[in-house]
Amino acid sequence: MTISEKIFSKASGKTVKAGEFVMANIDRAMTHDITGPLAVEGFYEIMRDKEEKKVWDPSKIVILFDHQVPADSLNAAANHIMLRKFAKEQGIINYDVYEGVCHQVMPEKGHVKPGDLVVGSDSHTCAYGALGAFSTGIGSTDMAAVFASGKLWFKVPETIRFEVNGKLPKHVYSKDVILHLIGDVGAEGARYKAAEYAGSTVRDMPMSERMTVSNMAIEMGGKAGIIEADKVTEKYLQERIPGFKLDPYWKSDKDAVFSERREYDVSNLEPQVACPHNVDNVKPVSEVEGIKVDQVFVGSCTNGRFEDIEIVARMMGDEPVAKGVRLLIIPASRTEYMKVLRAGYIEQFMEAGAMVESPCCGPCMGGSFGLLGDGEVGLATSNRNFKGREGSPQSFVYLSSPATAAASALTGEITDPRKI
Amino acid sequence: MTISEKIFSKASGKTVKAGEFVMANIDRAMTHDITGPLAVEGFYEIMRDKEEKKVWDPSKIVILFDHQVPADSLNAAANHIMLRKFAKEQGIINYDVYEGVCHQVMPEKGHVKPGDLVVGSDSHTCAYGALGAFSTGIGSTDMAAVFASGKLWFKVPETIRFEVNGKLPKHVYSKDVILHLIGDVGAEGARYKAAEYAGSTVRDMPMSERMTVSNMAIEMGGKAGIIEADKVTEKYLQERIPGFKLDPYWKSDKDAVFSERREYDVSNLEPQVACPHNVDNVKPVSEVEGIKVDQVFVGSCTNGRFEDIEIVARMMGDEPVAKGVRLLIIPASRTEYMKVLRAGYIEQFMEAGAMVESPCCGPCMGGSFGLLGDGEVGLATSNRNFKGREGSPQSFVYLSSPATAAASALTGEITDPRKI
Repeated sequence: MTISEKIFSKASGKTVKAGEFVMANIDRAMTHDITGPLAVEGFYEIMRDKEEKKVWDPSKIVILFDHQVPADSLNAAANHIMLRKFAKEQGIINYDVYEGVCHQVMPEKGHVKPGDLVVGSDSHTCAYGALGAFSTGIGSTDMAAVFASGKLWFKVPETIRFEVNGKLPKHVYSKDVILHLIGDVGAEGARYKAAEYAGSTVRDMPMSERMTVSNMAIEMGGKAGIIEADKVTEKYLQERIPGFKLDPYWKSDKDAVFSERREYDVSNLEPQVACPHNVDNVKPVSEVEGIKVDQVFVGSCTNGRFEDIEIVARMMGDEPVAKGVRLLIIPASRTEYMKVLRAGYIEQFMEAGAMVESPCCGPCMGGSFGLLGDGEVGLATSNRNFKGREGSPQSFVYLSSPATAAASALTGEITDPRKI
Repeated sequence: MTISEKIFSKASGKTVKAGEFVMANIDRAMTHDITGPLAVEGFYEIMRDKEEKKVWDPSKIVILFDHQVPADSLNAAANHIMLRKFAKEQGIINYDVYEGVCHQVMPEKGHVKPGDLVVGSDSHTCAYGALGAFSTGIGSTDMAAVFASGKLWFKVPETIRFEVNGKLPKHVYSKDVILHLIGDVGAEGARYKAAEYAGSTVRDMPMSERMTVSNMAIEMGGKAGIIEADKVTEKYLQERIPGFKLDPYWKSDKDAVFSERREYDVSNLEPQVACPHNVDNVKPVSEVEGIKVDQVFVGSCTNGRFEDIEIVARMMGDEPVAKGVRLLIIPASRTEYMKVLRAGYIEQFMEAGAMVESPCCGPCMGGSFGLLGDGEVGLATSNRNFKGREGSPQSFVYLSSPATAAASALTGEITDPRKI
């Protein structure tokens, strides 16, 4: 069995295989300020004839606000108020505006473990695959059903196994690996499949880098992006879930059937850049060097962790941000922010002319702040570059690793970090 | 002569008195991202038949972005782009998104000195009166005329002299003094007059506190809010304008004619709070204690300096922000931010659960972020509490000193800082 088949077997209470339809029990459900209100409305619609309108299990639901924080419109403020009320009435954990981006906060607070079936009303919920969970994004109406019943139907997905081997060259990171994979298989290459990342390169990645890889599974159409739990996972979780022990069961068996195996040797991989206006329009940095950038954004659930920001800090040293470039740095959570602050990096960035903001999604979804205007070019460590994603439909978004972002912030144009 | 009469005499090249109309030469003009675009359009309208469309003196104009920073809408992004282009073409200083709130940045960068006539397309331009300048807010179309000609007509205003004496009690600050004055004279009490602040209390104020007092002159209808330059002013400016020397001429003469003299003894002044929905609806804190607050905002041109934020830090100590309260702290400029950071206060605030953002106007004008929703209550150190000023027209904004704001953030309700 694949790890996905094992998880759906547990979740549905019977042994199932890829292709079967199951009604699965959800271990954890997450919703945020953008998609949450519709899920709550849907929940009350489902419950309209019930005497007691209670969610199936408040201890298994997590709410937080990250997309429009602090409230950037009257709608956002109203959504926050509505979700606060719902969480309070139902007894649901609500991190409110305080903790940061959902996909960083969920693993950080110990809400996810290997073998779990997790849903979130956000595309990048696949991020928790880095912990060996089957974790996937669902719509608000599906979330309403989960709130009501704790169950959701799934087709057990087939699995594409990505075997990535080789030691990454200097200044090349997991973001470059995942961009390379997405560029290779295309935006639909893993449609409704579980991506399983394996091989020595993935094994060697610290948790922060694994999260980047799992996070972007959806960008190749993947339903999940799973990395088998190991000692790295165990250490990460033991710091967050008291008494956590690694269960060797939660991995794909040797005789597991994969729909496809793809092998990659990344020992000579160049830094990669996803070019406008699709995430799978990936080029080696050498092909896009010299393109002038107006804004560089370092942050998001994809690359907003301490380790990502440390890469930027080390590459920038005492150098200022290039004249005319807006460098926006937003740690993905309060915990990450504190690490960045205590390492002296916020002082360094502010001194260099950057803007550092409190944990939130920032410009990633183009609705809050840090928006690009007509004709402007942004380079971001986030996960999507669709037309208008970061502001004007007449703007251009490139995606890269934190290293490439830092190099580009220093020069004012897309720059190969190996040349800094 | 009053100091205002002296400044208008210099600016118009003849000896003038209150009540006369003059065409005055402008020493410095400031515009920002909200009002700037209209001023630029007006300028080009005025210059439409001219061969060379140049501003009168680019070295006397300062542009910066503070209200919608980082760009929080496509309009904001477009405004920024337009003003960048204008500044570049004209050779005008443009601090762009990098430096902070206009009324903090202008004095900080040495753009204002005693005896100057300064205009800005923002109501709180009266802030620079703290440096002994005549400084006033004008509309964007007037600013267009200034861009084109360097001149603007004025009626030389009469002056109300506010004599404030007495040592302020512990936990009572200049914000309490100015709120008390505004409450006393009312929102129109100084309409089209220069407020001149004098007396031992004002003399004893450090520059940061003087700026608060001058900043809010407009809230009683004042055209300016002037404090005679002295050793405090001299020291502040010597650190910012090379070779600056205090000229004893820039003060009201002993026989100056004031329209009114008002005397205040503040040695027993209680902390003051301006209540919804008018700045002159001022009450002693004891009358509003216990009102639950959803958000506390510390920042703005009124009270966003290091000294203000230090008051908050000291009052909070190691205590967390009250549960359910959003504490938003935004230093008024990058320079102030660095001082706050290096004093360890950002670490302290973030640890306490606050949100600290890069320098900008923040929620003060209710257009950017940190908006209040229907029925929510905000306490702010800023300068206006009109209906909807900080978000929903169904929200409620109270204004106070940083000390009262800090005490209230700790308890979750409006709290007398003397009781913490």
